[in-house]
Amino acid sequence: MNKPTDQSEFETPKVTTGPLPASRKVYTHPKADPSIAVPRREIDLHPTANEPPVPVYDTSGPYSDPNVEINVEKGLPRTRTAWVKERGHVEEYEGREVKPEDNGGATGKYLAREFPIRNRPLKAVDFDPTSDRAGAAAPASAGNSSEQTRPPITQYEFAKAGIITKEMIYVAERENLGRQEALANAAETVAQGESFGAEIPEFITPEFVRDEIAKGRAIIPANINHPELEPQIIGRNFLVKINANIGNSAVTSSVEEEVEKMVWATRWGADNVMDLSTGRNIHNTREWIIRNSPVPIGTVPIYQALEKVDGIAENLTWEVYRDTLIEQCEQGVDYFTIHAGVRLAYIHLTANRVTGIVSRGGSIMAKWMLAHHKESFLYTHFEEICEIMRAYDVSFSLGDGLRPGSIADANDRAQFAELETLGELTKIAWAKGCQVMIEGPGHVPMHKIKVNMEKQLRECGEAPFYTLGPLTTDIAPGYDHITSGIGAAMIGWYGTAMLCYVTPKEHLGLPDRDDVKVGVITYRLAAHAADLAKGHPAAQVRDDALSRARFEFRWEDQFNLALDPETARDFHDQTLPKEAHKVAHFCSMCGPKFCSMKITAEVRDYAANMTDNEKKALNLEAEKGMAEMSEKYAEMGSELYLLEDGTKREAID
Amino acid sequence: MNKPTDQSEFETPKVTTGPLPASRKVYTHPKADPSIAVPRREIDLHPTANEPPVPVYDTSGPYSDPNVEINVEKGLPRTRTAWVKERGHVEEYEGREVKPEDNGGATGKYLAREFPIRNRPLKAVDFDPTSDRAGAAAPASAGNSSEQTRPPITQYEFAKAGIITKEMIYVAERENLGRQEALANAAETVAQGESFGAEIPEFITPEFVRDEIAKGRAIIPANINHPELEPQIIGRNFLVKINANIGNSAVTSSVEEEVEKMVWATRWGADNVMDLSTGRNIHNTREWIIRNSPVPIGTVPIYQALEKVDGIAENLTWEVYRDTLIEQCEQGVDYFTIHAGVRLAYIHLTANRVTGIVSRGGSIMAKWMLAHHKESFLYTHFEEICEIMRAYDVSFSLGDGLRPGSIADANDRAQFAELETLGELTKIAWAKGCQVMIEGPGHVPMHKIKVNMEKQLRECGEAPFYTLGPLTTDIAPGYDHITSGIGAAMIGWYGTAMLCYVTPKEHLGLPDRDDVKVGVITYRLAAHAADLAKGHPAAQVRDDALSRARFEFRWEDQFNLALDPETARDFHDQTLPKEAHKVAHFCSMCGPKFCSMKITAEVRDYAANMTDNEKKALNLEAEKGMAEMSEKYAEMGSELYLLEDGTKREAID
Repeated sequence: MNKPTDQSEFETPKVTTGPLPASRKVYTHPKADPSIAVPRREIDLHPTANEPPVPVYDTSGPYSDPNVEINVEKGLPRTRTAWVKERGHVEEYEGREVKPEDNGGATGKYLAREFPIRNRPLKAVDFDPTSDRAGAAAPASAGNSSEQTRPPITQYEFAKAGIITKEMIYVAERENLGRQEALANAAETVAQGESFGAEIPEFITPEFVRDEIAKGRAIIPANINHPELEPQIIGRNFLVKINANIGNSAVTSSVEEEVEKMVWATRWGADNVMDLSTGRNIHNTREWIIRNSPVPIGTVPIYQALEKVDGIAENLTWEVYRDTLIEQCEQGVDYFTIHAGVRLAYIHLTANRVTGIVSRGGSIMAKWMLAHHKESFLYTHFEEICEIMRAYDVSFSLGDGLRPGSIADANDRAQFAELETLGELTKIAWAKGCQVMIEGPGHVPMHKIKVNMEKQLRECGEAPFYTLGPLTTDIAPGYDHITSGIGAAMIGWYGTAMLCYVTPKEHLGLPDRDDVKVGVITYRLAAHAADLAKGHPAAQVRDDALSRARFEFRWEDQFNLALDPETARDFHDQTLPKEAHKVAHFCSMCGPKFCSMKITAEVRDYAANMTDNEKKALNLEAEKGMAEMSEKYAEMGSELYLLEDGTKREAID
Repeated sequence: MNKPTDQSEFETPKVTTGPLPASRKVYTHPKADPSIAVPRREIDLHPTANEPPVPVYDTSGPYSDPNVEINVEKGLPRTRTAWVKERGHVEEYEGREVKPEDNGGATGKYLAREFPIRNRPLKAVDFDPTSDRAGAAAPASAGNSSEQTRPPITQYEFAKAGIITKEMIYVAERENLGRQEALANAAETVAQGESFGAEIPEFITPEFVRDEIAKGRAIIPANINHPELEPQIIGRNFLVKINANIGNSAVTSSVEEEVEKMVWATRWGADNVMDLSTGRNIHNTREWIIRNSPVPIGTVPIYQALEKVDGIAENLTWEVYRDTLIEQCEQGVDYFTIHAGVRLAYIHLTANRVTGIVSRGGSIMAKWMLAHHKESFLYTHFEEICEIMRAYDVSFSLGDGLRPGSIADANDRAQFAELETLGELTKIAWAKGCQVMIEGPGHVPMHKIKVNMEKQLRECGEAPFYTLGPLTTDIAPGYDHITSGIGAAMIGWYGTAMLCYVTPKEHLGLPDRDDVKVGVITYRLAAHAADLAKGHPAAQVRDDALSRARFEFRWEDQFNLALDPETARDFHDQTLPKEAHKVAHFCSMCGPKFCSMKITAEVRDYAANMTDNEKKALNLEAEKGMAEMSEKYAEMGSELYLLEDGTKREAID
């Protein structure tokens, strides 16, 4: 089914660079460690606004910095290698040799070009990746406390040991976005949200970050072999994050497209990218992506493992899977989706579902278990998996292989049985020193969303929740970025830490460049709506700045402050294309004579000239008028007031 | 600012006709009155599905019926005239003469062609539209009870009198959608929603409809002069409805576009259409729209009144406004947005807002009140307005002229002061025999949405709520169908009866044909998500049918059951264009060897062959496995379990 690969597809990827409109890349230096440079974007406003630039979270990496020369042949600077090495307890080693099956057996002109530079990987000194016993030995050692006392490698281990890493300092600075100044400028509009138990502080300190990670409530996905990464934190007491999926498939797409998709997705606001490639050239494509990625990269290792056994699920073995984990750990994948909660005993629970098992990973493991009539090797070897992932600080994303694929299947026993198992596995992974997040549904009607969040927090000890949507109805294929955006905003409000995007092509085809952008923007706005509703102390700064621009007819500022300035400008120009209209004090909806915003400006002048006595007099008059109306109405003898004051009110209060 | 009008724009409008894919128009005949033919759409499934056709609510009118010959020069059949006449107490009369200012003074080649047929309007026999005293007389008569005993004209009056109209029988049949059969086929998947006090019965009877209307909890917008209408009910115990706005503006658009926009919007699911035209040719454009509209048409009469005084708000008078109401009542407008709750005393409350007054109607009235320093004539003449609207059964849509235009202004004192006044006015309108719904915001962050619904129900005696969005963030111009679709789904769930759509062009420009479709589909899916969450007894039938089709690779059925079959098919074909792929048992996401749905089919075979003992044994084994894991974990001496069972749980339970 692979399409014929054209040589041009293996040329050096061309990627999108340059700043967004009116935007500057600013680097700030945290007090706790001024050697660290933390990027953010600042949007400059028109001089007539007389307002400071609006700082926004920047996921786009060096690509949007005009002072950085991008060369995808070299990859991004490997800044973080020094941080990892200075902490110690790691060592460089030769690393696993790339095998033909890593690229699906592609050879000659069908083999994607290798990334030109080969870096020797790092690992924990106490881990031997070449020994099958490295992992297997772990359970035997469970009785002693050596694991608790061995030197820290992962962010979780450092946090538990009371040590603040540079990554923690970095994400604290990044989350604050100069919050202090921003709040000073907009003090009166700070949101008072409903946080459902989340505890977002006014300012994020490195110590707060450490404490949240130590509690397991947040993670910094950061493989020690992905030093190109700009660290980022995922947890419900931080800004809600989003993930974009990319990946070639057996049917279509190329290396070039995949690297550019990653750059493109992060340009529009993807905090994380998952590479869900299948088919040939998985290894080489992933190398290009990771070496050029400023954001954490996640994968589902079982996909590549399956390719190595020619797509025949029953031929999967622990050894093949383990080898794939090592391969990807060495490359620098930051988190793995692992469907270890799909157990043999749960499979029959899905038999009467409308849409059975819709997770690829879940169905692969189900098929394997049925074929062998054995418990999942992901479950039985879970501690060995922990040992491997701990040695590179790869975070768990415990997969929901039994998530519902339709409204009918939402919140059923199969889904929740798996979630309970994920809770058990979370605690094991923590005991092994690993960072953990938990994946969630899927397709869930609105009234069944909240219980998912509550149960996840309870079962999984408040480990971060990472949900796909959820889609709130099944009837709108082609618009599932929206059916799921609704559910995503809601579950983000309730406490989900990261939202996995859905594009308009969901259920129908593979997303192209435009679909990726629409998916990312939709999820950015959903995440932001969630931040607002949770009462994130600085979230409303951007809304207020944009609304002031709108009210004052600063069209350029309105476009520039938008999540998607290009589309906003394009839509405006479709109706009023002339440049002069960008400064006109009217818009296409009403025309020049008839503008509500213009009239409101006059209201302000009026109110400014009113005395307090005048205001009081007006209010009294209004009350009198209403009383007269009521009286007249009562004279008419209707019984409606009685109803209104009696039974009706009770029913709705 | 009017663009030069081209003669071609005044040619006979061309409209979109024909059924949607795999769909048939079916007419059913209610037991209560078999002479009535109620349309619905049935979607046929592939024979291999072995399922009955899926019935869906049909807003598209005769345009989608291949057996009806459409001639926009004649308009739709005037079926309902006989119903109105047979109830009595109405009379035909000559009607108001069309004046040049009704069309903004357009003459000659700038004047849009008149609709070719002129029908004499109907009115209540007890109403004299030519006398200024007709309305003014009302307050004087308030002391006596003649209004309570006069013969019924409006649906509200009939309902209060215990009389079931043909419109009530019609909407009961229409809402049921053959629910009995549908439920029989899908009994096990009937949703159990959270209705927040709504009381949706399993089957809708005409008596239930009458009772809901009599309580003021639902309306059937149906001007006696819009006999082309297919009646429809708006109330929170019925399917959630949506409204699409169309309208030419001073800057752009033509008659032809407007009629086709109405047909186009209803084709994709608009239950109601508001004609928000400004500029020239308002009267003639509206006549074409109403004569060809199967759905209720709403307007904001102050827009046309303002045109009659050359756009100068302070020149508005009660007389001009009253004349405009009569003009539109005679034409057949079904509901009027009237911003009578914007009172002089509330204006200064908006002065410190970020976005002041954003409603056009609200700002026009604010300007008038400031110029004259007088209470709004809409408020002081409210009873006269009721008298006029009652005589034609035009429903009130009490406008929220002070709705928030930004997140910062949500739920402020200005907004809620107006809502309280709307509550007072609701009771007066009911006492006068009128049907009433209430308009709501606007821009509201998620955590502030629910209180809007609760306060509206309480203040307005459960009159139907009709909200614009609300938009849950301000930062995504170009995507405000989505920022608002999130809020719309939520407030629909909480109890809003009708959702006013927002298109991608909101805040930026005028929606074109594609924007209207995207807006309608987005709001259809939001309304459906709300129906599902409320626990509407038949809503899930379509989700289940589509999910089964998806699971069984019936691609054609999946497209045909989608809200937008064309887009679903188009997206699929972009990746896998060949016809053969429409029956292929795989999709573009995974390719042929690697398909979760295929694997699930094998799971079913397995489960079907399992004995109960086998299942039990498996479950025991799973429990044992988990217990072992836990034990091993406990041995490691972690304190995490204690935390989990103690303080942490309490915090989130």
